[in-house]
Amino acid sequence: MADDSDSSRSNAHGEIMRATYRALRDHGYANLTIKRIAEEYGKSTAAVHYHYDTKDELLAAFLDYLLGRFKDTVHEVEIIDPERRLDSLLDQLLIEPNDHRDLLIAMLEMRSQAPYREAFGERFRGSDAYVRYILRTVIEQGVAAGAFDDVDVDHAARALMTVVVGAQTRDAVLNDDESDAFETARRLADEYVSAVLIDDDSGAN
Amino acid sequence: MADDSDSSRSNAHGEIMRATYRALRDHGYANLTIKRIAEEYGKSTAAVHYHYDTKDELLAAFLDYLLGRFKDTVHEVEIIDPERRLDSLLDQLLIEPNDHRDLLIAMLEMRSQAPYREAFGERFRGSDAYVRYILRTVIEQGVAAGAFDDVDVDHAARALMTVVVGAQTRDAVLNDDESDAFETARRLADEYVSAVLIDDDSGAN
Repeated sequence: MADDSDSSRSNAHGEIMRATYRALRDHGYANLTIKRIAEEYGKSTAAVHYHYDTKDELLAAFLDYLLGRFKDTVHEVEIIDPERRLDSLLDQLLIEPNDHRDLLIAMLEMRSQAPYREAFGERFRGSDAYVRYILRTVIEQGVAAGAFDDVDVDHAARALMTVVVGAQTRDAVLNDDESDAFETARRLADEYVSAVLIDDDSGAN
Repeated sequence: MADDSDSSRSNAHGEIMRATYRALRDHGYANLTIKRIAEEYGKSTAAVHYHYDTKDELLAAFLDYLLGRFKDTVHEVEIIDPERRLDSLLDQLLIEPNDHRDLLIAMLEMRSQAPYREAFGERFRGSDAYVRYILRTVIEQGVAAGAFDDVDVDHAARALMTVVVGAQTRDAVLNDDESDAFETARRLADEYVSAVLIDDDSGAN
């Protein structure tokens, strides 16, 4: 059956994910329905249910999709210098949301449901772990190259992750036009890198 | 009418707030009902509705109550030395939740609803502003006393607020037994204070 081929399955997957993105952004998590996703998809709810049994299953796939997209952008970066690479990674993680602020709010709603929905909890823990892994890798390279001090790399990655999550959560509550959340976090991350990772007084040991 | 006196009204208020605390902790926000709060209160739902028309109105009052309790604990601190006072404030803000982890999760649920419920948004913005005000005051005292460098005090308060919110949000998603959220954030706050607020190389100007 042509419709069951891998490529048509994967096209449908991508289209449903993009439809979910728009539906989440416009309606938030609490008011999201398969019907609304199907409307964005331009097909019937049955066509969505053919791929995903439940809304939560679809949303777990959506969290995988977002993490996959983030991984792609990370892998595209070709900067080798560790200090500049960390800077570029922090830019990616702490970019002002602007046009996807509503998606961030929906993500916070899903995050707050993680303790009640194991499939969500698993994904948020997975993305926390992945972002920390990438941060750790870049910082380790910097330590090896002598660009950063011989710091506790695992802690430094967790610390920067805390800054990222803090920005996302503060931004969701502050008013759009006066939110300092991402600007503050980006500056804090810079201060952390300059003052803690790079200590001009002592070389890496 | 005796029951309408200020003191009985205020007793009822306190009892309903404590009942709400327990009900939120046990059921989370999404599954909270006036019935469950009334059960914890030990009275009828009508007795709750006598004081609060809707669940959201009651929860807005609960957010005021929590901020009030936090203000009380801040005012009780009698430490004068700015560095130790900031340290104690960070302890209060970043204490391991342990027995009130479930309440933190419920608070994150309410926070994620803030964009849809103005009464919640107003309270979360108010508590963000209050905590920043307290941090700013303590840091300003430290700058005046020469204990801290002449930093951008407003930014430093926002930065530490980002760390607090980051810890609360990360903790809600990580597994209870392996969450590093508060430990990481407390250490990050210390690093920020030592490396950014206190620069041993230069005195405050």
